[in-house]
Amino acid sequence: MAFARIARNGYRRSGGAVGNRTSEKDTLCGGLSTYKHSLPSLENVKPGGNLSYLSNIRKVDHISFGRRGIRATPEYLFAHAERVVEDSDMEYDDPKYPTLEATKLGEKPRVVVLGTGWAACRFLKGLDTEIYDVVCISPRNHMVFTPLLASTCVGTLEFRSVTEPVSRIQSALSKDPNSFFYLASCTGVDTDKHEVYCETVNDAGLRSEPYRFKVAYDKLVIAAGAEPLTFGIKGVKEHAFFLREVNHAQEIRKKLLLNLMLSENPGISEEDKERLLHCVVIGGGPTGVEFSGELSDFIMRDVRQRYAHVKNYIRVTLIEANEILSSFDVGLRQYATKHLTKCGVRLVRGVVKEVHPNKIVLSDGSDVPYGLLVWSTGVGPSEFVKSLNLPKSQGGRIGVDEYMRVPSVEDVFALGDCAGFLEQTGRQVLPALAQVAEREGKYLVEVFNRIGKQNGGKAFSAKDVPHGEPFVYKHLGSMASVGRYKALVDLRQSKDAKGLSHAGFVSWLMWRSAYLTRVISWRNRFYVAVNWATTLVFGRDNSRIG
Amino acid sequence: MAFARIARNGYRRSGGAVGNRTSEKDTLCGGLSTYKHSLPSLENVKPGGNLSYLSNIRKVDHISFGRRGIRATPEYLFAHAERVVEDSDMEYDDPKYPTLEATKLGEKPRVVVLGTGWAACRFLKGLDTEIYDVVCISPRNHMVFTPLLASTCVGTLEFRSVTEPVSRIQSALSKDPNSFFYLASCTGVDTDKHEVYCETVNDAGLRSEPYRFKVAYDKLVIAAGAEPLTFGIKGVKEHAFFLREVNHAQEIRKKLLLNLMLSENPGISEEDKERLLHCVVIGGGPTGVEFSGELSDFIMRDVRQRYAHVKNYIRVTLIEANEILSSFDVGLRQYATKHLTKCGVRLVRGVVKEVHPNKIVLSDGSDVPYGLLVWSTGVGPSEFVKSLNLPKSQGGRIGVDEYMRVPSVEDVFALGDCAGFLEQTGRQVLPALAQVAEREGKYLVEVFNRIGKQNGGKAFSAKDVPHGEPFVYKHLGSMASVGRYKALVDLRQSKDAKGLSHAGFVSWLMWRSAYLTRVISWRNRFYVAVNWATTLVFGRDNSRIG
Repeated sequence: MAFARIARNGYRRSGGAVGNRTSEKDTLCGGLSTYKHSLPSLENVKPGGNLSYLSNIRKVDHISFGRRGIRATPEYLFAHAERVVEDSDMEYDDPKYPTLEATKLGEKPRVVVLGTGWAACRFLKGLDTEIYDVVCISPRNHMVFTPLLASTCVGTLEFRSVTEPVSRIQSALSKDPNSFFYLASCTGVDTDKHEVYCETVNDAGLRSEPYRFKVAYDKLVIAAGAEPLTFGIKGVKEHAFFLREVNHAQEIRKKLLLNLMLSENPGISEEDKERLLHCVVIGGGPTGVEFSGELSDFIMRDVRQRYAHVKNYIRVTLIEANEILSSFDVGLRQYATKHLTKCGVRLVRGVVKEVHPNKIVLSDGSDVPYGLLVWSTGVGPSEFVKSLNLPKSQGGRIGVDEYMRVPSVEDVFALGDCAGFLEQTGRQVLPALAQVAEREGKYLVEVFNRIGKQNGGKAFSAKDVPHGEPFVYKHLGSMASVGRYKALVDLRQSKDAKGLSHAGFVSWLMWRSAYLTRVISWRNRFYVAVNWATTLVFGRDNSRIG
Repeated sequence: MAFARIARNGYRRSGGAVGNRTSEKDTLCGGLSTYKHSLPSLENVKPGGNLSYLSNIRKVDHISFGRRGIRATPEYLFAHAERVVEDSDMEYDDPKYPTLEATKLGEKPRVVVLGTGWAACRFLKGLDTEIYDVVCISPRNHMVFTPLLASTCVGTLEFRSVTEPVSRIQSALSKDPNSFFYLASCTGVDTDKHEVYCETVNDAGLRSEPYRFKVAYDKLVIAAGAEPLTFGIKGVKEHAFFLREVNHAQEIRKKLLLNLMLSENPGISEEDKERLLHCVVIGGGPTGVEFSGELSDFIMRDVRQRYAHVKNYIRVTLIEANEILSSFDVGLRQYATKHLTKCGVRLVRGVVKEVHPNKIVLSDGSDVPYGLLVWSTGVGPSEFVKSLNLPKSQGGRIGVDEYMRVPSVEDVFALGDCAGFLEQTGRQVLPALAQVAEREGKYLVEVFNRIGKQNGGKAFSAKDVPHGEPFVYKHLGSMASVGRYKALVDLRQSKDAKGLSHAGFVSWLMWRSAYLTRVISWRNRFYVAVNWATTLVFGRDNSRIG
């Protein structure tokens, strides 16, 4: 029993019913689907074999795969949970249940990568496709250059300038006969059978919807990212915007422009105008600060010119429970505070208690009416990660050793925001940063290429193959723009170390050049430069599309 | 009774219950809202007065304003028709019903423009804002450069490159204290009171939703465009994509990329692959042909490279009941037919009978399975235009005289796809082309500037002011690209006239240069050129956002 075995190893730190069979009823309530099959013991499986145990599928056990999905299980599915369960029973009886079968002897080993974020894409980019076939599974077909996402909300950059199609990052995905990109969410992993379970979006008129399939792997890289933390606060998911994906930025942009236009309508009261044009940002991390800075830029340059009727009503408030940019040097923090205040951003120390459609309630009981609410208070483990019966690190991430391996199961690796070092490695869980994720991806792909060259690519074949040096993370520093051609650059290696830090226009130039060189493709590098230049010359575009 | 008066004039050609009072029940079924107020006779109103008759609002009569809205009445409203009626009763009793009041003596006259298409924007661009204040009302805040819209579906051009914010076209809208842009749909016009009724989108948490208001005008320019013709064919609205707005292009793009990716999933049958990747275009006009050409470009260059696994399944079929590009020279038509066929577009003569989610049924009984269906069979009058009790021209457009005036009412003009010459003018209704709309807008704004200079700008004051020469349309020719660096240029002035026509690469260069110079702003001209260049160098971007 693969899942029980993991539980016995006792890696999981957080609570929860690991190893306890949930009753049928619990499964239906909490879960999307119930897979019924036998879970053969590891001893039955031959390394490098053709996964002949696929034929072992029987109705023996009930294990809930929980609420799964790389970002989150689509909500529309929950209502149909019971029906889905029935369907999946039928599907399992159906011998045609679609499968990308395990690789055979003589075939290249197959790496399955879950996700298209920083870690996954850096891994994909470096993979030696002479050695491996690769399958990438993700609900989005592109990487998002997240540090520049805040700029797209107000039109400084175009949306397409910060996205990179995954098939450009690793062309084998679209060209090689045995490499694929699947636009789907992973709903579960069977580490013994070396299989992942997937389902596609629900919109194609296919025979059965959601369309489910499974993919056998030789090696699995879980880089499925994290989800925004809401701390269980009521109303956040319903009324606030997150800022993690391009479509989040699109929605923020649409809402902002809508509010600007609606507040010009005849008869809108002063109170309504002030509310509509009150942009509230929750969370003073780099995303929250950069978004506030971009907003104040937008207001000072574009709103004043192009929404002259309502320009005096628009305000930005940044609410943070502690200090803004807490990971930055104290001097930089003070600079940011002063600069943002000067640019008209109101900084409020407060804790959100509840979110209503048009106002938030703080824990001191005060009401803050808003027209646009952006929530960026960090990230935590996704429902998919929570549902995996794998060892967990502090913070509920998938626990890994110093080679990014998930111990206790073979051929499973985890990277980026969804992975964290296990306590017994004696290492700290690294922060959820693009920089960390990218470095982990780069490290692991080198390990993979090394193992692959020593014929360790196939399932169950890498145990005795030397992996090389363990992963060591060296922080290169942090940057954040604060609007109006100013940025912070903090080159200290850790929070308590000493080192160079700088704020101002020169930092802003460093910020821009650094990101311009980090943008993955020449096409996007060109577009980002062109967007910046046209914003400077023509101002920001304010078409509200859709 | 304003509406009855129009009916007596007998201009309206089409059938319908003009002048017949509809019963309360009919009103509720067919209509969005019922405005209850007295409609004072024209004699009571003083020219240039301050619309003191506003206070005459009483519950005297019931007139259905029908299903109105510039594009179409939002569907969500129909379910609530009864509630809305009750609300509007209350609103009319409410003295605070929001209004942009009529201009007073000594104030600049106010022109209200409905729409942001070619005609409206050309009009707005040329308006002398020293003479007039201007209010533009439209559910979208930008103009779409429609001839290039087909190119955005496959990523040849970016969406933002073909949109122009209306506040850039006429900066007074955002700057002048008494000029405004309202993001709203017009739901009705009271030609006697010189007022238009509007409602905004339903998404802002305003006091009452939908938020309704009225705007008084001195002059009204209706340039609200047309709607796609579906000929009442079952399933078109539900399952087909139109190609008239940027968000239509976005949806087409998303669907196309989705189908390309889904068809790679394990276990998709040959039949499903062929269906998913069958793009069907209905209508062989310029839009249908250009979209087919762009699609075949996309397939030949980008799909082959980046969707190698499924490249042999993708097909394009263009279905037309008669001949493609029927307005073009016969030589050009033959060229287009040959070229499209060579590029892999299957041309089918057929009439659609029904549209189902995954197939269309032709009138000969044959089934055509599809994955993407684009409908472009021309346009007809919108529900808003149909609902107006104004004289109508052939084809149900708003009837105008040779000065683009709507006879029988004062100070109302109509332009573009929603306007047509009345039979008694002895002129033909002009085709629904960007070229026509733009020329009409240009003509009318010159009339307005002329009238304005002679103090004819205020309501009821232009009757005896000379309007200048009547409008004469001279066709400059037609162009259409057919893909793979080929286009058609037809410089004949009419369908039966003789004149230059050319097809091929030189025409394609002409097509590109002509449109590049027609793009309104320098910003977009620059972006269109940059997009074309990067598509040439890097190929099309295939990120699927949202």
